[in-house]
Amino acid sequence: MAKGFNKNITLRSVDFAKWYTNVITEADLCDYGDSSGSPKGTIIFRPYGYALWENFQQELNQQFKKLGVQNVMFPLLINEKTFALEKDHIQGFAPECAIVTQVGDKKLQENLIIRPTSEVLFCSHFQKIVSSYKQLPLLYNQWVSVVRWEKSTRPFLRNTEFLWQEGHTVHAQEQEALDLVLTIINLYASFVEKFLAIKVILGKKTVHERFAGALETYTIETMMQDGQALQAGTSHYFGQKFAEIFNIKFSNQQNKQEFAYQTSWGTSTRLIGALVMAHSDDLGLVLPALIAPTKMVILNLMPKDQQVSQAVDKLAKTLAQKYSISVDASDKSASYKKSEATIKGIPLIIEVGQQELTKQEIKVTARHNLQATFISIKDEQQLLASLDQILASSNHELLQTSTNNFNSNLKEVTDFKEYQTLIKNHKGYIIAPFCGDFQCEAEIKNLTSTTSRCIPLTPYKPNAKCFKCQKDNCPWTYFARSY
Amino acid sequence: MAKGFNKNITLRSVDFAKWYTNVITEADLCDYGDSSGSPKGTIIFRPYGYALWENFQQELNQQFKKLGVQNVMFPLLINEKTFALEKDHIQGFAPECAIVTQVGDKKLQENLIIRPTSEVLFCSHFQKIVSSYKQLPLLYNQWVSVVRWEKSTRPFLRNTEFLWQEGHTVHAQEQEALDLVLTIINLYASFVEKFLAIKVILGKKTVHERFAGALETYTIETMMQDGQALQAGTSHYFGQKFAEIFNIKFSNQQNKQEFAYQTSWGTSTRLIGALVMAHSDDLGLVLPALIAPTKMVILNLMPKDQQVSQAVDKLAKTLAQKYSISVDASDKSASYKKSEATIKGIPLIIEVGQQELTKQEIKVTARHNLQATFISIKDEQQLLASLDQILASSNHELLQTSTNNFNSNLKEVTDFKEYQTLIKNHKGYIIAPFCGDFQCEAEIKNLTSTTSRCIPLTPYKPNAKCFKCQKDNCPWTYFARSY
Repeated sequence: MAKGFNKNITLRSVDFAKWYTNVITEADLCDYGDSSGSPKGTIIFRPYGYALWENFQQELNQQFKKLGVQNVMFPLLINEKTFALEKDHIQGFAPECAIVTQVGDKKLQENLIIRPTSEVLFCSHFQKIVSSYKQLPLLYNQWVSVVRWEKSTRPFLRNTEFLWQEGHTVHAQEQEALDLVLTIINLYASFVEKFLAIKVILGKKTVHERFAGALETYTIETMMQDGQALQAGTSHYFGQKFAEIFNIKFSNQQNKQEFAYQTSWGTSTRLIGALVMAHSDDLGLVLPALIAPTKMVILNLMPKDQQVSQAVDKLAKTLAQKYSISVDASDKSASYKKSEATIKGIPLIIEVGQQELTKQEIKVTARHNLQATFISIKDEQQLLASLDQILASSNHELLQTSTNNFNSNLKEVTDFKEYQTLIKNHKGYIIAPFCGDFQCEAEIKNLTSTTSRCIPLTPYKPNAKCFKCQKDNCPWTYFARSY
Repeated sequence: MAKGFNKNITLRSVDFAKWYTNVITEADLCDYGDSSGSPKGTIIFRPYGYALWENFQQELNQQFKKLGVQNVMFPLLINEKTFALEKDHIQGFAPECAIVTQVGDKKLQENLIIRPTSEVLFCSHFQKIVSSYKQLPLLYNQWVSVVRWEKSTRPFLRNTEFLWQEGHTVHAQEQEALDLVLTIINLYASFVEKFLAIKVILGKKTVHERFAGALETYTIETMMQDGQALQAGTSHYFGQKFAEIFNIKFSNQQNKQEFAYQTSWGTSTRLIGALVMAHSDDLGLVLPALIAPTKMVILNLMPKDQQVSQAVDKLAKTLAQKYSISVDASDKSASYKKSEATIKGIPLIIEVGQQELTKQEIKVTARHNLQATFISIKDEQQLLASLDQILASSNHELLQTSTNNFNSNLKEVTDFKEYQTLIKNHKGYIIAPFCGDFQCEAEIKNLTSTTSRCIPLTPYKPNAKCFKCQKDNCPWTYFARSY
């Protein structure tokens, strides 16, 4: 396998952004919406890309259901007046909203907004159906697409329309709501570390970076290979703020009326972007085994040879019992087949030709490190055990690499001048004691184009003076350039 | 259990339409979108209603995948110009289309249409990616919502926004495309008969009732309890029509350029409406066991009694190994609990109280016919076998009833005058020899408010003179009032 070169993929070291778009299109994950009659900034999820999202859905759905979360589906369109009820919320979203003003050639009496998020609809519904503490908590979730008209877009990372899940919950007790917010962000964190094999920083957002309308936003933050940060999931606590505006009341155990406590939380198809930018290389996609739609591909190197083909069929039958596999028995050249499987990031690439047949073994290349192993096919159980082993260690190694990348590129700073110098060339996170004041952060962003990522839930070091304004007793906070 | 009366549900014999909306809201399947900040004609799928749709999805997805269908996701918005490319198509849909004209307060340069269906996007993409017969067939499907601004709406049956799946395929051979159209409509038919337990008529649409832009539309038609027809799924053959407009060409085995052959097909959340109107009764919802989200509920009749509660817990544990179940151990009255389970159409309602404990048996009421059986709980295997048996026969009996309803209400007509008289009071389908000409059908519709449902694939009787225009040699065709 030719290392480090594929003529359709720009090298990461040459142009990381171009490399990214080359990889996602060459691997057939998506296509640009504006090439097929949709507006700029939208994408078409091709089968391979959508299969990834389906895998995320399946796993997260299972985990949500264990918590008692129920799936629902709310309408796509929101009346303008309803949307305007919560002021912070509308200020945050209004400029990005796509607005329906007519049906056919008839103008509507009231404009309709395509949901950029659905808090106001859920709240209006909760107001209608919640009356007693006995009904609570209500734990709802929906898998939908939302529209936010972004100025600059990039497939998966920032799209005019993207797919996500949005959870919305109502609670009778403040503590229960706060607990759920943390339960969810922990669930996201372990999902991303286990299945996507990406190192995650779990923390709280500063006021500046909070979700429009939330009292508190928790986040999981990741680092891409170019050192930039990517927010991979958020969980918001609303307290009684939306309940007061939407009049969501319940009678408590003492039969008194009380406003409900609420949360919302989401992950999106950005996770696909994160997956690509965290692990892939100059040859194409690299997918962790646990989330890969196809775990292994068998390349029939001599499709015209009957014996080889029979061996491939037999092997495929054995492997298909346990794994989702594919077989390439086309008349393309061996190197072309290998290159295709490599671009697609299939975790194990298995070669079967005349030589393998004679020796009764197969050549198995692990995509993530391109290391080849020869495994005997004489004993079926032994074979499956060996493959299991390679799959498991590939996931483990990817997470290890991601963690090492994060740690070895983390810099500690206590002085803003030092920060300004460092940030010019540094690729990675920086951690600094920070007051978290809105104005202080606005200045930092303005001067450096970096933002705080989060205040880690486990304190990094004892509090210290703010690196920007020298205020006392400030928590250490992660900063970075971000997607 | 009080037979035939629930104060919140209008009797079917009094007002079928009102009964329907009572049942779907009382059973918590949905709520009206305009009660919570969305436009009129939309609905909120509440957890119980959405769980039904998820069950449909899961089963259909499995069946599609066996055929090699791959899921994808195309954008929500379509440029007006792209949408206008196929003339029949745009004529059919334009008046119902919701149009985005601005983002925030900025007017867009080109209006965008919220998809009412996605043929034009799939075709534009196919044009880009299809080049050789070796890539074909492409069998794509997506699960999305679509928006069609209907004048009069009814939950599930006709909504401004509804959920569906839309399949879109491209083939190198005409015959292969034609075969797929039939494979899919047969798949739909057996899905509806097996899982929804509704008798299905499988046939071809007349020109008048064809999908806008299709050369041929196949359909499955069902009959509701009020005798009206409901179209439950369609499969369209496009020939090379869209391929010629969108320039979808491939090089064939002889290396010559040829236009591709296409199909599209869909089922929607109308199926939930069909399910309700086909089986439910004056007490509430009736769900076939195979599709019910909860197969059985255990009512703890003495939740304060420790022994009874222990017996309920033990029973729940046993049943949960095999079925999705729920337990009602609330302090509500026994009759209230029974009534709630009945409204929700849970197939088996199991009662456990002091008496049951003493006799070591449970009272099992089959929701669909309200018949109670007492089953010993001494032998676990015997218990599960008995429950299996009741569940299976409930599905079978519901389909039997649906089939009998259809057959006993079918009338044969050969003369239009007779048809006009009959249609005034008849509840059910009518079959008549019919020319299928557009003009002839337009007149029938105009005079009787009925439409042809389909020409059955298995001819009903030898061809005869058209009941309207006396043209010779016409196939027998189903007619009915429809939803």
